[in-house]
Amino acid sequence: MSYLNLLLLFIPLSFLGQYWQVGDSWIFIAACIAIVPLAVLISDATEEIAGYTGPKIGGLINATMGNIPEFFIGLFGLQAGLHELVLASMAGSIIGNILFVLGVSIFCGGVLHSTQTFDKTVARSNFSLLCFAAISLVVPLAFKLTQHDPAKLERGLSVLSFSMASIMLLIYLMGLVFSLIAGKNLFLEQDRNGNGKEAKWPLRHAVAVLAATSFFVAIESELLVSKVEAAVRELQLPELFIGIIIVPILGNVAEHTSAVMMAVHNKVDISLEIAVGSSMQIAMFVAPLLVLISFALGNPLIYVYDPFEVIAVSSAILLSLYVFQDGKTYWLEGALLTFTYVIFCVAFFFQ
Amino acid sequence: MSYLNLLLLFIPLSFLGQYWQVGDSWIFIAACIAIVPLAVLISDATEEIAGYTGPKIGGLINATMGNIPEFFIGLFGLQAGLHELVLASMAGSIIGNILFVLGVSIFCGGVLHSTQTFDKTVARSNFSLLCFAAISLVVPLAFKLTQHDPAKLERGLSVLSFSMASIMLLIYLMGLVFSLIAGKNLFLEQDRNGNGKEAKWPLRHAVAVLAATSFFVAIESELLVSKVEAAVRELQLPELFIGIIIVPILGNVAEHTSAVMMAVHNKVDISLEIAVGSSMQIAMFVAPLLVLISFALGNPLIYVYDPFEVIAVSSAILLSLYVFQDGKTYWLEGALLTFTYVIFCVAFFFQ
Amino acid sequence: MSYLNLLLLFIPLSFLGQYWQVGDSWIFIAACIAIVPLAVLISDATEEIAGYTGPKIGGLINATMGNIPEFFIGLFGLQAGLHELVLASMAGSIIGNILFVLGVSIFCGGVLHSTQTFDKTVARSNFSLLCFAAISLVVPLAFKLTQHDPAKLERGLSVLSFSMASIMLLIYLMGLVFSLIAGKNLFLEQDRNGNGKEAKWPLRHAVAVLAATSFFVAIESELLVSKVEAAVRELQLPELFIGIIIVPILGNVAEHTSAVMMAVHNKVDISLEIAVGSSMQIAMFVAPLLVLISFALGNPLIYVYDPFEVIAVSSAILLSLYVFQDGKTYWLEGALLTFTYVIFCVAFFFQ
Repeated sequence: MSYLNLLLLFIPLSFLGQYWQVGDSWIFIAACIAIVPLAVLISDATEEIAGYTGPKIGGLINATMGNIPEFFIGLFGLQAGLHELVLASMAGSIIGNILFVLGVSIFCGGVLHSTQTFDKTVARSNFSLLCFAAISLVVPLAFKLTQHDPAKLERGLSVLSFSMASIMLLIYLMGLVFSLIAGKNLFLEQDRNGNGKEAKWPLRHAVAVLAATSFFVAIESELLVSKVEAAVRELQLPELFIGIIIVPILGNVAEHTSAVMMAVHNKVDISLEIAVGSSMQIAMFVAPLLVLISFALGNPLIYVYDPFEVIAVSSAILLSLYVFQDGKTYWLEGALLTFTYVIFCVAFFFQ
Repeated sequence: MSYLNLLLLFIPLSFLGQYWQVGDSWIFIAACIAIVPLAVLISDATEEIAGYTGPKIGGLINATMGNIPEFFIGLFGLQAGLHELVLASMAGSIIGNILFVLGVSIFCGGVLHSTQTFDKTVARSNFSLLCFAAISLVVPLAFKLTQHDPAKLERGLSVLSFSMASIMLLIYLMGLVFSLIAGKNLFLEQDRNGNGKEAKWPLRHAVAVLAATSFFVAIESELLVSKVEAAVRELQLPELFIGIIIVPILGNVAEHTSAVMMAVHNKVDISLEIAVGSSMQIAMFVAPLLVLISFALGNPLIYVYDPFEVIAVSSAILLSLYVFQDGKTYWLEGALLTFTYVIFCVAFFFQ
Repeated sequence: MSYLNLLLLFIPLSFLGQYWQVGDSWIFIAACIAIVPLAVLISDATEEIAGYTGPKIGGLINATMGNIPEFFIGLFGLQAGLHELVLASMAGSIIGNILFVLGVSIFCGGVLHSTQTFDKTVARSNFSLLCFAAISLVVPLAFKLTQHDPAKLERGLSVLSFSMASIMLLIYLMGLVFSLIAGKNLFLEQDRNGNGKEAKWPLRHAVAVLAATSFFVAIESELLVSKVEAAVRELQLPELFIGIIIVPILGNVAEHTSAVMMAVHNKVDISLEIAVGSSMQIAMFVAPLLVLISFALGNPLIYVYDPFEVIAVSSAILLSLYVFQDGKTYWLEGALLTFTYVIFCVAFFFQ
C-alpha cells in the first residue's frame, strides 16, 4: 500500500489549490484522488479494529464503517442540495460493485483458475436484500410516473420516501440480527484477506487512523461536492456521469482491489461477499440513512431515482442473480458483467 | 371457529342497516365484516365435500369453490360497471397471497423453527402459471401504451382481452389435467389441515352449508359493491386502495389463517401451496372467467390493469420466484415479503 | 426432404411472376415459400461440411452459416431502408425460437415421454448470452425514452448503437473461444440429428450446394424485401406482423423441424441447444453484424427496438430462464411457451 499512500499528498495539494485559487476543476480532481487512499486506509483501520472484537462484532463494524466515504459524499451532497448527484452516486455504487468489481474479479479469477465455485447459500441473503432494494427503486418511480395530481404526488412521494427508508433500515437491522443468530456471514467478510489473520496494529493506533482518515475524508468530500458544478462546466463531464461512474469508483477502490485479489487467489466466495455485500449496504443502509437525515435536516431527499438509473440497477441485479445462481463462475460471465457496465457507462455519458 | 361465527351477526346487521337507512358507509363496513366468516365457512364446507370424493376430485372442488367470494365480488362489480375495482381486487388478491399471507406465514414459521424446507418441485407448476399470469398482465398494458391510434387500440384491446382470457382458462384446464395425470398436487391442497383427515360433516350437511353460505356471500357482495362509492366518499379511502387491499383481505381470511397455522406447525409446503395456489387461481381462473362473462353480458371488461398494479404484481411474482427458488425459507425472507406488501399498501393509499 | 424440395419450384415461379408482372403480393408469397426449402438445404449443406471438419470447427461453421437466410433478409432490408422491418425480424426470430420452436418441441416431447430431463449446465452459457442480449435491448430504448434533448439523443443513440454492436460481437467471439477451450457446446449442435453421423455428401458437392442455395436465398430475400410494402398494402398485413412473425418463420423452418424431431426422440437437450443457440446467434451475431454493416454503408441502423418488441423479447427470455432452470421439461411448460407466443402474435397483429 506504500505507493497508494503517496496519493495522500493530494490532501495538502487540494488545500494549496484552494489557497492559491487554481481552477476549481483542478481542486475537484485533487479531492477525487485524495479520497482514494483515505478510503483504503479506512478499510484497513476498520479491519484491524474488527480483529480485536471477534468475527461477529467485527462484521458489524466492517459493515458500518466501510462505507464512510460514500456516506460523507452523500451527506455533503445533501447539504449542497445536489440531490440528484447523491442518488446517482448510490445507484452507481450498486451497479459498480455487482457489475464492474465482480465482473473484473470473475474474469481474472476465471482466466487463472478456469471454473471457480462458491457456496450458493452464502450469497443468497445478500441477494434477497438486493432484490428488495430493486423493488424499492421501482415502486416510487412507478408511483411518480402514474400519479398525475401534483399535490397528491408531492405528498405521496414524501410519505413513501420516509416510510420506505424506515422500512429499509429496519430490514437491514433484521438482516444484521439474522446473521448474528445464524452465525452466517450476511454482512461483510470477517476479513478481506480471507484468512483469520491476527490484528497487526495496536488498537489505539487503529482507532486513531480511523478517526483521522474519517476526518480528512469528510473534508475532501465537502471539497469535492463544492466543486462538482465547476467540474461539470469546465471538464464537460455530465453531472450524472460524475455521480454514477466517477464518485462510486473513488469510494470503492478498497473493495475493488480486495475482490480482485481474492478471485485471483481462487477465493471467489469472498469476492462475492465483498462486492454484493457492499452493494447491499449502500442500497439498504447508506441510502435510507441519508434519506432519514435529509428529513431531519428539513430538506427531504425524495427517494426517486432517475428512470434510467432504475433500469440499470434492476437489470444489473437481475443479471447477477442469474449468473450467480449456479454456484459456479467462468471468465465468460465476468466478461459479460464487465461489458454490461461498459454499456451503462456509454449510455450515462450521453444521458 | 366459534368466535368467528359471531361475525355472522353482521349479515342481519347489514340488512337492518339498509332498512333503517343508516349511513351507506356503515352498511359497507357491515358487509365487509359479514363476508369474512362466510368465506371461512365456504372453505370449510368445500373441504368437507372434498373429503367424500377422494383427493383428485377433491382438489378440483377446492380449486373451483374456494374462490366463490372473490368471484361474486367481481361479478357484482362488473354489473355495477366498477371495472377498475374488479381488476384491482384481482391484482390485490394475487399480491396479498404471495406477499402478505406467505410473508407472515414464513416469518412466523421461521421464528419458531429456524430454517424450514419444502419440496421445490411441488411449487414449480404453480409458479410457472404465475409467470404466465405476469406476462398476461404486461402484454395488454404494453399494447395500450404503445398503440396510439384510438380505433385500433379499442379493437385490439377487445380482441386481446377476449383471446387472452380464453387462453388463460385453457391453460388453467390443462394445468388441472396435468395435475390429475401426474398425480401431483398442482391445484389446491388435499386438505388445509395437512393430514388426510376424514370428513366430519354428513355430505348433505356440507352441501347445504356451501349452498347457504354462497347465497349469503352473493348478497353481501352485492351490498358491498353497491356501497363502495359511498365508502370512498365518506371514509376518505381511495377506491384503488379498497379494491387492492381491503376487498382481497375479506375473501382470503380462510387461506391466511390456514397458511399461517401450517407454517407454525412446520409444514411450510402446505402454506406455499395454499398461498401460491390461491394467487394462481385468481389470476388464471377467476379473472379470465370474469372477462368472458363480461363479454357475454355485452359490457366487456377490458383486461388492462393499472400500470402500478402491473408493476406491483410483476415485482411480487419475481421476488417470490427468487425467494422460493432454493427450497428453504427463513424468517428474514418472510419479513422481506411482508414489508414489500407494506410498501405497496402505502403507495396504493396515496395513488 | 423430397417433398420439401418441391417447394424449390417457387424459385422459378417467383421469377416468372416478375416477368409476367402478376400482382406484387403474389411474388412476395412465392419468395416467402421459396426461402423455406433453401433455408433447409443451407442447414443440410452446412452440416455436411461440418462433418468433414471435426466437431469444433464444425460447430463454428454451423453457427456462422446457419443464419444465412436471416442475414440476407436483414441485409436487403437495410439497403431498402426498411430498418424497422430488419429489427422486427431479429426480435421475431428470438421470440419465435425460444417460445414457439421450443414450446412445440417440449409439448410434443412431453406428451410422448412425460417428464424429459436435460443437462442444466449445457444450456446456461447460451442463456447467459441471451440475458446480455435482453439488457442490450433495454438500454438503448431506455436511453431513447429518457433523453429529451433531440441533438444529444441522436448522437447518443448513434454512439450507443455502434459501441453496443461492437461489444456484442466481441462477446460472441469470446463465447466461441470459451466453447472451443471448454470443449463445451456453447454454439450450435455438432449435428442436428443427434448422433455422430458421418458426412454423406462429397465435400465438393456440399460446398457447391451451400454456394448455390446461398446465392438463391440472396435473390429471393431481395425479392421478398422489395415486395414487402406491396404485401402490406394488398394483403392487409401490418408490416410489424410480417417482420416479427412471418419472416422469422421462413428462416427457422430447418431449426423448427429438427428441434421438434429431437424432442420427439427424447433428446430434449438438443432441442434446447438448437432453439436457444439459434436465438442467441441472431441476437449476438447477426443483429450486431447488420448494425456494423449499416454504419459502414453510411446509413446507420439505430439499434433501438420498438418498446413492445423489447417487452416481448425480455418477457420471453425471463419466462424461458424460469422454465428451464430445473433441468426438466413437461408438456404443460411447452403449452405455456407456445401460448405465450400466440398472445404475442395477436398483440403484434393489432399493433
